[in-house]
Order: sequence, then C-alpha cells, then structure tokens
Amino acid sequence: MLSVAVVGAGGFGGALCAGIVHGHPSLELTAVTARSDAGRRHDEVYPRYAVPLTLEEPDADRIAERADAALVAYPHRAAAQAVRDLRERGLKVVDLSADFRLSQEAYERWYQPHEAPELLGEAVYGLPELGHREEIRGAELVAGPGCNSTAALLALWPLRDIARDAVVDIKTGVSGAGREATSDTHFVSVADNVNPYKTEGHRHVAELQQELPDGIRLSFVPHLLPIDQGLMASCYVTADGEPSREDVQALFEDAYRDEHFVDVIADPPRTGDVRATNRARVHATLDEGGRVLAFAAIDNLWKGAAGQAVQDLNLMLGLPEQEGLE
Amino acid sequence: MLSVAVVGAGGFGGALCAGIVHGHPSLELTAVTARSDAGRRHDEVYPRYAVPLTLEEPDADRIAERADAALVAYPHRAAAQAVRDLRERGLKVVDLSADFRLSQEAYERWYQPHEAPELLGEAVYGLPELGHREEIRGAELVAGPGCNSTAALLALWPLRDIARDAVVDIKTGVSGAGREATSDTHFVSVADNVNPYKTEGHRHVAELQQELPDGIRLSFVPHLLPIDQGLMASCYVTADGEPSREDVQALFEDAYRDEHFVDVIADPPRTGDVRATNRARVHATLDEGGRVLAFAAIDNLWKGAAGQAVQDLNLMLGLPEQEGLE
Amino acid sequence: MLSVAVVGAGGFGGALCAGIVHGHPSLELTAVTARSDAGRRHDEVYPRYAVPLTLEEPDADRIAERADAALVAYPHRAAAQAVRDLRERGLKVVDLSADFRLSQEAYERWYQPHEAPELLGEAVYGLPELGHREEIRGAELVAGPGCNSTAALLALWPLRDIARDAVVDIKTGVSGAGREATSDTHFVSVADNVNPYKTEGHRHVAELQQELPDGIRLSFVPHLLPIDQGLMASCYVTADGEPSREDVQALFEDAYRDEHFVDVIADPPRTGDVRATNRARVHATLDEGGRVLAFAAIDNLWKGAAGQAVQDLNLMLGLPEQEGLE
Amino acid sequence: MLSVAVVGAGGFGGALCAGIVHGHPSLELTAVTARSDAGRRHDEVYPRYAVPLTLEEPDADRIAERADAALVAYPHRAAAQAVRDLRERGLKVVDLSADFRLSQEAYERWYQPHEAPELLGEAVYGLPELGHREEIRGAELVAGPGCNSTAALLALWPLRDIARDAVVDIKTGVSGAGREATSDTHFVSVADNVNPYKTEGHRHVAELQQELPDGIRLSFVPHLLPIDQGLMASCYVTADGEPSREDVQALFEDAYRDEHFVDVIADPPRTGDVRATNRARVHATLDEGGRVLAFAAIDNLWKGAAGQAVQDLNLMLGLPEQEGLE
Repeated sequence: MLSVAVVGAGGFGGALCAGIVHGHPSLELTAVTARSDAGRRHDEVYPRYAVPLTLEEPDADRIAERADAALVAYPHRAAAQAVRDLRERGLKVVDLSADFRLSQEAYERWYQPHEAPELLGEAVYGLPELGHREEIRGAELVAGPGCNSTAALLALWPLRDIARDAVVDIKTGVSGAGREATSDTHFVSVADNVNPYKTEGHRHVAELQQELPDGIRLSFVPHLLPIDQGLMASCYVTADGEPSREDVQALFEDAYRDEHFVDVIADPPRTGDVRATNRARVHATLDEGGRVLAFAAIDNLWKGAAGQAVQDLNLMLGLPEQEGLE
Repeated sequence: MLSVAVVGAGGFGGALCAGIVHGHPSLELTAVTARSDAGRRHDEVYPRYAVPLTLEEPDADRIAERADAALVAYPHRAAAQAVRDLRERGLKVVDLSADFRLSQEAYERWYQPHEAPELLGEAVYGLPELGHREEIRGAELVAGPGCNSTAALLALWPLRDIARDAVVDIKTGVSGAGREATSDTHFVSVADNVNPYKTEGHRHVAELQQELPDGIRLSFVPHLLPIDQGLMASCYVTADGEPSREDVQALFEDAYRDEHFVDVIADPPRTGDVRATNRARVHATLDEGGRVLAFAAIDNLWKGAAGQAVQDLNLMLGLPEQEGLE
Repeated sequence: MLSVAVVGAGGFGGALCAGIVHGHPSLELTAVTARSDAGRRHDEVYPRYAVPLTLEEPDADRIAERADAALVAYPHRAAAQAVRDLRERGLKVVDLSADFRLSQEAYERWYQPHEAPELLGEAVYGLPELGHREEIRGAELVAGPGCNSTAALLALWPLRDIARDAVVDIKTGVSGAGREATSDTHFVSVADNVNPYKTEGHRHVAELQQELPDGIRLSFVPHLLPIDQGLMASCYVTADGEPSREDVQALFEDAYRDEHFVDVIADPPRTGDVRATNRARVHATLDEGGRVLAFAAIDNLWKGAAGQAVQDLNLMLGLPEQEGLE
Repeated sequence: MLSVAVVGAGGFGGALCAGIVHGHPSLELTAVTARSDAGRRHDEVYPRYAVPLTLEEPDADRIAERADAALVAYPHRAAAQAVRDLRERGLKVVDLSADFRLSQEAYERWYQPHEAPELLGEAVYGLPELGHREEIRGAELVAGPGCNSTAALLALWPLRDIARDAVVDIKTGVSGAGREATSDTHFVSVADNVNPYKTEGHRHVAELQQELPDGIRLSFVPHLLPIDQGLMASCYVTADGEPSREDVQALFEDAYRDEHFVDVIADPPRTGDVRATNRARVHATLDEGGRVLAFAAIDNLWKGAAGQAVQDLNLMLGLPEQEGLE
C-alpha cells in the first residue's frame, strides 16, 4: 500500500479526492488537511464519502512523515507554495489548481506572478488522453487540468489537425464554482436560471491554446446552470478540407479507441450519464452547413478534478490507470 | 372590450395566453377550448392563472359567436386547420404554431405538406422588434415566432448587416418541450442534466434564415436544461470589418432604443431576470479573438410564446403594445 | 395616490414589496432604501420587478418627507429601531420582522430584549383572515406574520375549537432563508436534498401559541427544500369529538367562504399552484385513524411576506384589500 | 462466484440492482431482462451503471439455466407470477415489489387478490435491522420493503415499546415514482413544487402496522419533492412514560450500535448525505412539548430498494452483509 495525503480536503474537489483514495485498493489515505475545518471529521463534513479521518491543519513535515504522495486541492497561488513544500520533502504531487498547468508566461498573463516558477520545468499536464500518458508515468509533479478545459480538450483533440476555428460553449454545474458561499452560488440565484460569465476571456482558454496547435481561432464562454455536478462542452468547429460526417467520426474513433475513460457515442452525450464517474462521453457530427459539432460531457468533480487527479496518480505510481475509479 | 378566445388552452403556452388575456384591461376572455381537458375548469388545471372559465370542446361556430379574435395554441399541422376555420368566420388570429411562420417551400421542407397554404399570403411574422410592427398592425393573421427563434433573432438582428457566420447555442427550459409526458420530460431525466438535441438540424433555423439576410452561415443547437421557464441564446458571430466593442454595442443600442420589451444591458443577461415577464434582455460584446458574442434571455412561455402573441394581438387591435403585459 | 416607502428593499422580501407597490394602482412608491446596495438601481439588483428607482441609504427624515406609509423589511432587532423612527414621524408602518408580532414576554423569551417595547401596545398582528381585519383597518402599526406561521395558522385556524394536539411539518423554499450567502443556502448544499432544521424549537411556534387557543399541544419542524419560492404546512391534528370528514370540511368552508385570498380545495394543495400569487390554498380531510390532516400552500415571499404586507397596508389605508395583488 | 439475474432491469430500481450486482466482487451478473427495452444494451439505457449486457425478454427457463438467484423488480401483481416461476425452478429470490411483504389478508385489503398466495409462508420481510437478519439468512424468498416504509420503520423501530401515537411525514424524490412518464413526473409539474399525495391512506402504512406492535395510532402522508434520489421520514411520536432526550437517544444507540448501514447522528439527517449509498442516517430528539421527533434519511433507490435487496441477497447467500455495497 502506498500512502497518500490529501491537502485541502475541505473543498469539493479535495473532499472527493479523499473519498476516492480512501476507497482505492492500492492506496492508503494517511492524512487529510483543511485550514478552516481542521479538527472536524471528514465524514462529518462530507458524510457521503465516509472517510473516517480527522481534518488536520496543513503541515508539510507531518504530511511527509506519513505520505509518499499528495493530492493538493488549493486555490491557485496558495497551491504553488504548498506544492513546493511537499516536493522539497520528496513527495510526488498531483496539484489540482492552475498553478502548474501553464508556462510561466501564460500563467502570469492570466493569473499573477508565479510563486514557485522553479517547479514549472518538471510539471506535466495531467490529461493522459491527450498524449501525456508517458510523461505522466515518469513525472514527480502533475498539474490536473481545469474542468472546463478537460471537456473542451477532449472534444477538440481529435480535430486538432483540421480545426481552423472553434467556438466552445460550456455549461457547468455549481460545484465547479467551489464551496465558498457567494451571491452567485446562492440557491435562489442559481435555480431556474442560466448565467453566462467571464464572457470576454476565461483563463481556461489558456490551456486550450497550450494543448492545441497554433492557429486555431478560439472563443470560449462558460455558463453556470442549476445543476450540482456535471459539465458539457459544446464545440462548433470550422474545419479545413470539407470532411464528411464519417471522416469526423473516424477521427474520434481513432483518438479514443484505446481509452478506458472516454466513450465515443452515436448521439449527443448527457451530463447525467457520467455523474459520479470518471468517464467522458463524446460525440461528433456535422451540421447542415458543414460545421463540425463536437460534444463532451464529464462530471466536473470527477474527470474534471478529483477523478482525473487519481487517474494521474495511478500512472505516476505504476498502478493500473483505472484502479479505484470504477 | 374586445372579446378573445384561446383555442388550445390546455397546453402550457395556451394556458398562459388565457391567463394574460383574462388579466388584460381591454380584452375580455370569452372562451377557452381544449380537446383533452374539455369540461374541466381552467383554474383547476392551472390554478396560478386564476381563469374562472370552463374548458370547452373546440367548435369554430361557437367561438365565432363570442369572439372577435383568437389565439391558437395547437401543435403545428393541427393549427393550420383550426386557423382556417376561424379566419373563415372572420376572426383575427394569432397562431402560436409553426404553420404560418414560413414560406410554403420552407415549411414543407422542414415539416410536412401544408394544410392551409392559401392563408400564407396574409400571414405576418409576429416579431415586432424585427421591423414587422407596421405589418402586424394591419394583419388579420399573425404567426407567433418560435421561442428559440425569438431569442436568437433578437440577439442577431442588430448584427445582420455585418454578420458572416453565426453559431447559436440555445439553452432552454422544459416548458418549451410542451405538456406531454415523455421520457425526455420526466423529472429524473432532466434534473442535474444537460441534454443537447436535434444537433444536426433544428427546424427553428428556418426562421433565422427567413428573417436574416442571405449569406450568413448558421449553426444552431438547442440544449434542454433543468429549468422550468427560461431560454438563453448564446450567439458567436464572425463579423465583417473588424468592428470594435463600441461599434457592436452601438448597433444594439440603435436597434432597440425605442423597444419597450428589449433591454440592452451592460453584462450578460440571466434567464431568471426575465422569468414571468415579456421582456428580452440582450447584451453584446467582443472576445479576445475579435468574435462578437451576443446573448438574449427570454421567458420561453412569455416573450417566446404567449406574451409575444398578446403583444401581437395588441398591435392588430390598435391597443397599446404593452397593455396587459406588465 | 398615497406615497409609500420600502425600507430594506435589498432583501428578497423587501425587494418584492417594492415591486408590488410600484405596480399598485393607488400607491406611489417614493423611496426604496437598502444599506448594502445603496446607490444601485433597484431594477439592476432585481430586474424582474422593474422598479426604476435608486436604492438609498436609510434616513427617517428623508423618508418622512416623501412617504405617508412604509413597509419595513429588516431583520428582527434592527427593525424595531427603524419602525420607531418612522412612527415618531407619523408614518403608518407594516413591519415584516418578528419584532412586533408577539407580546414583550414571548418576544424576549425567543429573541432578545425588545428595542422598542413602547410600540407593542399599538401593534396589530397582520393576518386578516384570522379575525384581525377590523383591527388592521384601524392600526398605525401592523406586524406582518412569519411565513411559516401564516401557512400553519391558515391550516389550523378553522380547527381551533376542536384541536387538542397538532403536529406542523413545514416544507419551505430557500428564499425564506434570506439573501445572505451561507453554507446552508449554497446551491450544492440545497440541491437534491431535504434539510430539517431547528427541530427542538422554532421561534415561529410562538405565533401559533399566541393566535390559537391555549391548551393545544404543538410540534413544529421546518424542512428546507430545493425550491425557490413556496411553502407548505402539513398539519396533523387530533381533534375532540370525533368529527367526520364532512364536519371538518364544513369548518374550513365556514372559515374562508368570504376570504378572497384563501381557496378551500377538494384535494391537497401544491405550492407551485400559488407561486407568485398572494393566495393560500388549503385542504382538510380525515385519515383512516381519524386524525385531521390540514394542508396550506403559500408563496413564502407573497402571502408569507410581501404580498400579505401590502394586503395589510391596503386595509390600513382604506383601499380595497386585494388591490395591486392580482 | 454466484450467478445472479435481474428481472425487470429496465426500471429505476431494477437498473440499479444490475449495476450493484455487476460491481459486486462475489456475484456474477448473468442475465438482465426487461420487457419494453429488450434488445437494447443496459449501458445504453443507463450509461452510468456501465453494465455491459443486453436486456432480454424475460423467460424463466433461460434465466434458471444461468442464475442461482434473482432480484425481481416488477410492479406488484406482475411480480408474484414472475417470482413463482423462478421459485419453481429453484432460484433464491429477492422481490422488490409489495407482493410478498404482507399477509394475504393485509395484501388483499390494500392491493388486489394475491397471485401466488402459496409462497407467502416462505417469504421473509427484508429489513435486516428490524430483527429479521437470521430469518433472511435462511430464506429462499425475501420481500424487499417499500422505500417509505424502510425510512419510517428505521425511525420508529427503537421507539416501538414506548410509542403510542406516530405521525409519519414522508418527503420523497421522484425516482420513487418510477420510470413511467406521467403528468405527475413531468419536470414542469415537479420543479419548484411540493405535492402531498394519497393523504387519506397510503398502502405503505400496512408495512408499519405489520412490523410495529399493535396499538400505535399511525398517520402517514408522503409528499413528492423536486429531488431525484432521496427520502426523508420525519416522525412525530407521542411516547408513554415521559422519556427524557437522553432516554430516547439511548434507545437509538442500543438499536443500531452494531448496524453497519444505520448511523445514529447528533443532528437531523439530510438526504443529500446518503445519496448513492446504502446507508440510513437517523436522529432522535425531544421537542419542547415532550414529543419525540425521529428522522431517517435514505436514498430511496439504494437502502429503499436496490441496495437493500443486495444486502438481503448477501445474507441469503452467506456473504458478508455489506459486500458490494460500499
């Protein structure tokens, strides 16, 4: 058994990380930390995950004594320092924040000055299905992709060589907005409502720009919906070369034939069909005007955050990629 | 007082028509019909609308005795015959179905052979804000636009002279799918779910093609969401001539400055903000890549159906356009 | 036109008060105040209500210059002082908080020392249907009942002379919990959840004890549900004298025959049927064991708060009771 | 590996049975049947459960060739015949319908003439925590309790010797109403609504009468809520002997100390905390008037149906009770 700590286990993503690691047959969950809920039992705060541990104040030394690896689920910026502390003590780390996803230049354009730029060289982008699997296997530090980016990239990746222009319209559940109570996450504000936000430029587009070839014109707008867990990327792609519907579907089959967590399906996916799973369901077709429509549905907390982080950790630790995720 | 009948008052749209007419200061609701609920009181089936009338079997003669005008809320195809029966008896009609929105050619391409083609010549498309106000004033037969089309057209209309390519991503509430109980409208199927449908070609695109200039490449995908009433059109428009954000916003200001029911706002709209109103809230901006983003939020049952039908009826009857709609 | 101010128009209840007064044919809304949103337009914060006024810092002198009456929608304790300031300047007041609903003794048992006990003598409990109509007509200060209490009392009032024991199980929408963002109002906390709270003693039971005869044993538990607006009181009443179902229904018919806002119906009510109306729908029956079951459904923001406050104000000002509420 | 068939795997409860059996380490799912979906893959109809089998027409002989035991998830009445067919072929059966829960007399009072009364003698009521564990271990036919009854009985069982009168107010999610699309399960009918039903006598009360001592007066009203999965029983119990809060809590601790699937907690439970688990969370306290309040929260599809059926099957087959249910 390899011992794993979850740092930041009080938020939605970190709490689920703890739940998955706790149920994982080859991992032992040895510590869960949370700044504001320290002292409470994890299964009191999140009964559904049934993790029988007490949330502790974060302390890198005490974590290092008990864990070989850590999942860090902090907000960006706070994450960088926590990751450095754990990497200095030799732990393998999957970080769920944006801090190690981008180049320093791209990061500082969209976020703020980087707190641990010396680690960027070793960080690997943790989307195995985008050709990063081998790198992840050898990595000491993996950056878990954003939930919006994960869905968008899974929908666009098979089209990368023919796409010229892509509109990405994201529909996302409220858990993606985090546990903090704000006017935007108030039930009355969300129920029976559709709320587009960050219309003029969302940070997650930086991940798309990084992972896709240069020269694809991208638009990207997330919409907050009255759903709890679930995320849909609807992508409208203008492609070179007038591909047929069959051509497009063949690109998807080829891209994901061997992927355990990506199902290419014959109809548009529904987010409810992937709820509480690490699966992505993707579908591509052509509309009347010849535009490629590509959809990807994920659970933002699973394939979009905690599930994918454990998938990455499995690879880093030499375990079967899907262990603990079914 | 002008007397008005609502034909098909058992469905969601027709029921609301009855409610609005009942509360209208210059109209008297003299008959409500419904095939499957005939014999029941309207306020038993729809208590919230408080219409103290009994639903009758539809009978054009009996309606014509009591009403000067009618709102017809039947499914397409059934509507055409009902409208003919009423027009033959001299009633002014607003029809909420698709039957009189399109040319015969376009209609028969998307639907089926037309049941009353002789009436197409007199039918006017009932979106006053798209330059149809004067025609509606003089019309005997008005075709209420589809809910998806209403929102999409309100978002695209100010851009019609510069748009070259438009992706329309629709998010719609379940009441738009009608009162029939199906596996797609079952609560368990809809809750915590996002469901794209008719991805390869939705009939409502025909209304966009008709109302917008030729040569705009259109994609159009509706998504069913766990909301009751509400509809958002998110439009991604590639425009000629590299307009600035200010240029775009000026086009919207100009288009809707005098429109009572369209608010041009400084931020993206939310569907909850128009719930149970006849208003549309629209917003336009430019993203980083220079694409125009245009959003319109409406209540699909109000501005997308019953409210707009009464707005049209007000015009046809020489009443103030907004009477009974506040 | 009588001029009215709404004090505390930034919260859900106060915002709706402003909306109703704005649309009221005999009232003019002359001021809206809000501490935290002062300076913003009301229709920017609550677009749906379409109130074209700017929220002001509360100032009793400035309000008194412009208003003959005020609706005060503050949290309890803060309300007492605000009401005193307005009463000292001669305004008629409907207060929506708990501050003037109870005797000083009962208030101080459930809340805290009273801030304006000298006003308790003139305050009238604002539930017209419970025999308070004439008192309200002559009152200068009316205390709007709590939403839970309104529904429970409407269900229990016809049974008051035969009830010996009553269990009141309340199901309430989230808007009743107020606009403040907390972990309990976070969408993720509320969605797909049922949350009983204050099980061991809810303050609203004090209103029931006051309005009902002594000697009825009461239990009272509210449950928070994933609904926005709406409140159901399910009451299980053990009655003296083995009344028949017809006896019980006759009591309800008698109690509410002349009440415009209370519908006695033949089946259990549904909260959706009163959404955005000032109506209560009530139903009573007997179960197999002879227990009386009585249900009342209201919209917590309308009949449970703002609507009822305007109903009270209509009475105080000599206007038709239902004016502006349809 | 023991081989198990799920008969009626097209409905919500049966579909989940298949999902749980498929993931169970000691069971092999060898057949899934469904009348209306026969020929479709289970994972096409219910992608989330990832069961890679094709739904077959039900045929007892073909099932008996491949399975040692069966879970039957048919509506009542249809179930009795299906169970007889399987029992005649020697399979152990857990039936999820009402057909084998009650005595013939009670069954025929609430339902209809029994289709297989000869099997009633061998049927055991499948609520292990109510003292039925040993009987279930030796049984060939187990009747899975109703979802409402499961929650109500778990809340009332510890109080059985002191309860004199109990009001049971049930709040239930829509999946409990089954997969059939009706006007009552239409999203628009359920959303933002509370709907009490069968107020004058619900069949599930028969299970309470059977499992609890004679002489407790019972009232029982279910309410349909806008939640997908989840069920809360709020019980209001008048007890003999004026027990203290500590007395009551001790009864609950004693009753469930050794129960793996029942958590006695210090605060009222929330249905969201048991979603997609086989756990019940229960809580008891005393209110001001000395009434005992007891709450039980379950997931209606898990502990209220499919999860409990597998728990029963584990016992019948000599497997660890919780295997495959975590």
